[in-house]
Amino acid sequence: MDAFRSSSASAPPARKSWQEIAAEKRQADMEKIPVEWRLMTSTLAEAKIQRSLVGEFIESLLDAETRAITSMDVTGLVKQMSSGELTAVRVVTAFCHRAAVIHQLTQNMLEIGFDMALKRAKELDDYFHVHKQLIGPLHGIPLTLKDQFHIKGLDTSMAFVGWIGTFEGRKGTGKERNFESQLIAEFHSLGAVPIGKAPETSNNILGYLWSPHNQQLSSGGSSGGEAVMQALRGSAFGIGTDIGGSVSMPASYNGIFSLKPSSGRLSMRGVANTGPGQLVMPTVPGIMGQSVETLRLVLKSLLSKKPWLQDPYVVPLPWRACEEYRPEPKSSTQGHSTPAIGFMANDGVVTPHPPVQRALNMAKAALQEAGYSLIDWKPPSNLESLEIHGCIARGDGCPDVWKALQLSGEPEVPEIEGLFEPHGPRAPMSLPEYQDVVIHMRDFRNRYQDYWMSTATRTGNGLPVEVFVSPVTPTAGLLPEKFFYAEYTNSTNVLDFPTVVIPVTTVDESVDKVDAGFRPFNETDRLNMEAYNAQAYHGAPAAIQLVSMRLSEEKLLSMAQVVVDALDRYKTRSSLI
Amino acid sequence: MDAFRSSSASAPPARKSWQEIAAEKRQADMEKIPVEWRLMTSTLAEAKIQRSLVGEFIESLLDAETRAITSMDVTGLVKQMSSGELTAVRVVTAFCHRAAVIHQLTQNMLEIGFDMALKRAKELDDYFHVHKQLIGPLHGIPLTLKDQFHIKGLDTSMAFVGWIGTFEGRKGTGKERNFESQLIAEFHSLGAVPIGKAPETSNNILGYLWSPHNQQLSSGGSSGGEAVMQALRGSAFGIGTDIGGSVSMPASYNGIFSLKPSSGRLSMRGVANTGPGQLVMPTVPGIMGQSVETLRLVLKSLLSKKPWLQDPYVVPLPWRACEEYRPEPKSSTQGHSTPAIGFMANDGVVTPHPPVQRALNMAKAALQEAGYSLIDWKPPSNLESLEIHGCIARGDGCPDVWKALQLSGEPEVPEIEGLFEPHGPRAPMSLPEYQDVVIHMRDFRNRYQDYWMSTATRTGNGLPVEVFVSPVTPTAGLLPEKFFYAEYTNSTNVLDFPTVVIPVTTVDESVDKVDAGFRPFNETDRLNMEAYNAQAYHGAPAAIQLVSMRLSEEKLLSMAQVVVDALDRYKTRSSLI
Repeated sequence: MDAFRSSSASAPPARKSWQEIAAEKRQADMEKIPVEWRLMTSTLAEAKIQRSLVGEFIESLLDAETRAITSMDVTGLVKQMSSGELTAVRVVTAFCHRAAVIHQLTQNMLEIGFDMALKRAKELDDYFHVHKQLIGPLHGIPLTLKDQFHIKGLDTSMAFVGWIGTFEGRKGTGKERNFESQLIAEFHSLGAVPIGKAPETSNNILGYLWSPHNQQLSSGGSSGGEAVMQALRGSAFGIGTDIGGSVSMPASYNGIFSLKPSSGRLSMRGVANTGPGQLVMPTVPGIMGQSVETLRLVLKSLLSKKPWLQDPYVVPLPWRACEEYRPEPKSSTQGHSTPAIGFMANDGVVTPHPPVQRALNMAKAALQEAGYSLIDWKPPSNLESLEIHGCIARGDGCPDVWKALQLSGEPEVPEIEGLFEPHGPRAPMSLPEYQDVVIHMRDFRNRYQDYWMSTATRTGNGLPVEVFVSPVTPTAGLLPEKFFYAEYTNSTNVLDFPTVVIPVTTVDESVDKVDAGFRPFNETDRLNMEAYNAQAYHGAPAAIQLVSMRLSEEKLLSMAQVVVDALDRYKTRSSLI
Repeated sequence: MDAFRSSSASAPPARKSWQEIAAEKRQADMEKIPVEWRLMTSTLAEAKIQRSLVGEFIESLLDAETRAITSMDVTGLVKQMSSGELTAVRVVTAFCHRAAVIHQLTQNMLEIGFDMALKRAKELDDYFHVHKQLIGPLHGIPLTLKDQFHIKGLDTSMAFVGWIGTFEGRKGTGKERNFESQLIAEFHSLGAVPIGKAPETSNNILGYLWSPHNQQLSSGGSSGGEAVMQALRGSAFGIGTDIGGSVSMPASYNGIFSLKPSSGRLSMRGVANTGPGQLVMPTVPGIMGQSVETLRLVLKSLLSKKPWLQDPYVVPLPWRACEEYRPEPKSSTQGHSTPAIGFMANDGVVTPHPPVQRALNMAKAALQEAGYSLIDWKPPSNLESLEIHGCIARGDGCPDVWKALQLSGEPEVPEIEGLFEPHGPRAPMSLPEYQDVVIHMRDFRNRYQDYWMSTATRTGNGLPVEVFVSPVTPTAGLLPEKFFYAEYTNSTNVLDFPTVVIPVTTVDESVDKVDAGFRPFNETDRLNMEAYNAQAYHGAPAAIQLVSMRLSEEKLLSMAQVVVDALDRYKTRSSLI
């Protein structure tokens, strides 16, 4: 229970304020950026007044080599390293350079590991030189991670000021900057090269992370730092964490792809973490990147390391071909019928903003044109998920978070202010009350599964729907104070369903207007729609998510590619008309 | 919260005492046994004074047809029904007859479903007549289950007097005797035929269940009723439930085989259950029977129904060939090396009784003779499992059990007396305290896994051990008041490892003597060894268990067959010397 007390036996030096510690951390980060990659004050000022940093603006700050390399996707990079056209050092250098620029523009790197990344890249090049082959399927691929994963040589602070220089709040453990999460070890042996770690969206060290697509809007939480990195292509892929949409929502707000798998698919062993949700609804690592192909390659590569041999909480499921676990047809009339897809435009609790509605309509039209049958998706209500999720995730009153804040005396950021009483955490739920919620969760999962299986009578092919489409979040853009409803994603955690976020379009102030006939279902719905502002949100990405049954990530990714391809064809056709 | 109050709106009839209700239940059960299968009072008296009921005694009470059919294993029965040599009606009749006799001798059937079983058998025969093939891989195979599984037409009381005639303690739900657990539906479609349900070992309806091998000894808990049924072959296989050895221990005490799988392998959906352990260490269904081949066929058949499509808590793992999930070799020196097996004769906390030691030595010698290398198994201590298990399983103070008892006013059986305060359940642990235990459990699992993987340096083939052998329980026989230590099995639940129990030998008073040099590790160890009594325990079975990594039931069953075959050869050779 003294995990959060520092163990300084001798007379302590005058204690630094949390502001001083945070400022030192920012300074130390900046010093890790080579001088030649530092931006001029005038450039930073210019960046501040840009609406969007993506594309042209960020590219204008980079040399041709950096631009060329960082514009490639993971598959292309691996191919060129495999043929010797590119070296790992060139690839890692290019992404470190770009990431350094992004950090200066957005403050999205809590930990910078360029030195060790380049050292590793050199080793990989040496390996390639000697063995004439890549060390693994992610050889030389730079990645960034949310700052919950431990990497030797770097801090892990989860953006708590009091955790800086400690191991999860404790000093003298021998693990400070000297401990490795299992996922990091897996990436190492696959050849992937971590170049740094990104903070939570709202934090007292680096400040607030805004969307690079529209700097008036939030990047979304909590893996916002990582999402910003992907939106600006500062690494080839990223790893966030998710217990209620913390990967999916920032992916949506930043116009990138993401996969939040079911729990037990990827290792969370040795990852800094808090909260009682871990008992029955664990936080999971999520993959963020530029394409479904990237998500697929990263997941497949990680599974090739058999993570279940080291982490007993990982299910021993190797990468599988979809066909191995397709439900049996209920009727025998179908031949090679196309899969059916569930479609939920609105959960009946909170209506998505007009740009999200348009994104959903585009996906619907694209899939119908491609010959897929869409089945109206009306499962057990997200109102139930709403009752369950908060209790499961925060039923203990979050004493760990409180203690972490007390270590430095930093104030809670506005996003978590409501969590606590004025002078401490709320009283925890009782264990029997918590059990009742867990039983409700089990019942909700069972009824949801029944609903899912019942669609076999409506698909026409005798099979239940393979996946369903839904909003990721009811807002297209997001203003920090204007977030009211997370059940489109929370429900996927309550249900432990894997989900892929697919960017579809961006807010267009000229077409995305609130329907004059809109009548809110409830107060939350009203508040959410009132927050919509076509002018302010213009340019923000609008996404959909695709959701599949528990532990069926392979099928989900196959179907996500189907959706992406259909959307691409649809957009091409639409632009020709 | 009024789940346990009966909902009689009109003036209730004079309330029956729990003794009256229990007596009526016993009477109703007896009336379900056809007159021609009832035993004479003199036979019952004779049975009481037998040391053992297995083999000769029970067989002497049966006709030749019944004896012949019930002596066959599942594979043989299926084969003969497949060829038309046997009908389902003959098979089900024979087992019902034998089960009826067993019930009269041991009081091990809380629910009797002979009528519906014979009706189903007739349907199966009709199906076979029309289609010339079996309906499924368990066509016509009679089974019994622990009375937690719901079967339409039968009560589910878990041996709580107050649950009789209710649905899990509630009346007026419409589900009373009209609800089916998912596992039952799966068995139905596989062709298996439930013929009845067995009680917990110690209960106020039928009394205490003694071992049929030695009627002075306990059958072990809690799936003792089912273990007695298997020991006396009243059904072709049985299903118990296990959260701390409740399948494995009675299997050991009754000389039968059992498989307790990892959680998430078989469905517990729609099964009556209680307790907070369900959050993070769920009760699992276990398979009990006469051979490893039986366990294998039943598991494989159930997995063929893809239980994960109906139960979202089941992992989508179809039956797999072992090779698919063997760990990668650490060195590349081995060719087709034999698997290494961990061996733990004693956990350093409680020493097994001499007959269990001898069973372990026989397994060791048999495996060594068969060419397997045995690796000394010294994992993280079972003392840690001891700290964890009770809190996880009973940290809420078991208010559900208390309420179930209050419904009828029945007293708690001696086995659970210590659970409660004089006038109610103990105060539950707080949620944060519970979380701390769950984090300890996670840490224990991780360190255990590390230990397991570390054996790769000692096996000589570069691979970690495939499975390990250990005692099931430190006692060979068991006297009701003399049970002190359950960590050999509890640890497999804390770790979520699947385990197979293999009967090896029986207590021989002439050889199984306490080593004069025995010095107890601690007070529990002393009490356990003092409870040993070679004369009293003579004839009781002594078993070992084989344990494998989480969700690797296929490999475990393969290795269990290896052990059985090695033991068979060893015993044959020993008897020839």
